[in-house]
Amino acid sequence: MPDESFAGVSPDAARRLLLAAVEAFAERGFHATTTRDIAGRAGMSPAALYIHYKTKEELLYQISKVGHERSVTTLTEAAGSTESAPGRLASAVRSFVHWHAAHHTTARVVQYELAALGPEHYTEILGLRHRCEETLRQVLEDGVASGDFRVSDTRGTTTAIMSLCVDVSRWYRPEGRRAPEDIGELYAELALRMVGCGQAHPGGERRS
Amino acid sequence: MPDESFAGVSPDAARRLLLAAVEAFAERGFHATTTRDIAGRAGMSPAALYIHYKTKEELLYQISKVGHERSVTTLTEAAGSTESAPGRLASAVRSFVHWHAAHHTTARVVQYELAALGPEHYTEILGLRHRCEETLRQVLEDGVASGDFRVSDTRGTTTAIMSLCVDVSRWYRPEGRRAPEDIGELYAELALRMVGCGQAHPGGERRS
Repeated sequence: MPDESFAGVSPDAARRLLLAAVEAFAERGFHATTTRDIAGRAGMSPAALYIHYKTKEELLYQISKVGHERSVTTLTEAAGSTESAPGRLASAVRSFVHWHAAHHTTARVVQYELAALGPEHYTEILGLRHRCEETLRQVLEDGVASGDFRVSDTRGTTTAIMSLCVDVSRWYRPEGRRAPEDIGELYAELALRMVGCGQAHPGGERRS
Repeated sequence: MPDESFAGVSPDAARRLLLAAVEAFAERGFHATTTRDIAGRAGMSPAALYIHYKTKEELLYQISKVGHERSVTTLTEAAGSTESAPGRLASAVRSFVHWHAAHHTTARVVQYELAALGPEHYTEILGLRHRCEETLRQVLEDGVASGDFRVSDTRGTTTAIMSLCVDVSRWYRPEGRRAPEDIGELYAELALRMVGCGQAHPGGERRS
């Protein structure tokens, strides 16, 4: 599945280089990848790469930025809707899981290579991660305030729900038995249970 | 915290090499690490390394094996106790989380470098992963049978609980505000909620 998260990157050559870098980093890791490998995968010369990205770290930073901005958008849209807190939580989890499954290769690079970012880029990305976490936490707090959720540790439960969604990118296999949509649906139910919302019945039915 | 998971590896030089390999793989990734780096970190010569491990992959395989056998033991002990299903699930999650937090560096290598294993080693490690999953799934099925749990999708919920525990190794920081024990306690409660066991009260109290 082509990763449409990079659709906004232009010119075309810069986008192709980012996609090539995602593949290379995912296969070999950041430190074992050279800019020559990346240029080669994109069908370009190393000199052509340097027009767009001065360093290998710059490529990783752009990938991390696109990935994290996508997460912020996904969570902000879900959290900002006019639905009730349970509806907003379910919808945030559904779309967050869907992205991490459908784009597991990008997501792995985004999640596992953070330590290779330069200090300023690292700080910037941490800020985006913080926004994701705060956005989801607000949904939990709204649900507690409205009496829909029963949560003893809002911060820890927020971290756990984020973690559950992110880790889909580690174990998801496209050839596996579950489609990204199915995982999203199951995880939305599990997240509602984690915040003590409603009671699932033995048949697995739940009011939504 | 020294990783006691490797305490059973002997002789001492072989154990030191595994610990050095864990550090190197965690910092730079498997593909960017050389056996020379590993020998150097252990204060040994490359020739001394080859006495114990023929290839870099052999080091990764031993690390993966120790880590996965540790997971099998942890889960089997918890699952095999005479406690009720909720008690067994809580205890499995507590110890699984504790290991993934306290030994997050080993755990990251074990979880993220699987693709670098040779085909035979990969198959063997997958077998151990399968045993972990089956052991936890049995606890869920026991809890459903005893009426303690309400789970519509046992396989998917098992994967989710395993995933939640494993991913602690990604985000855990020793300097963070939570000790491994605290995360284990919270996650045991969240896992019980995920299987529809009991109802947490607004104050977060729960019968155990």
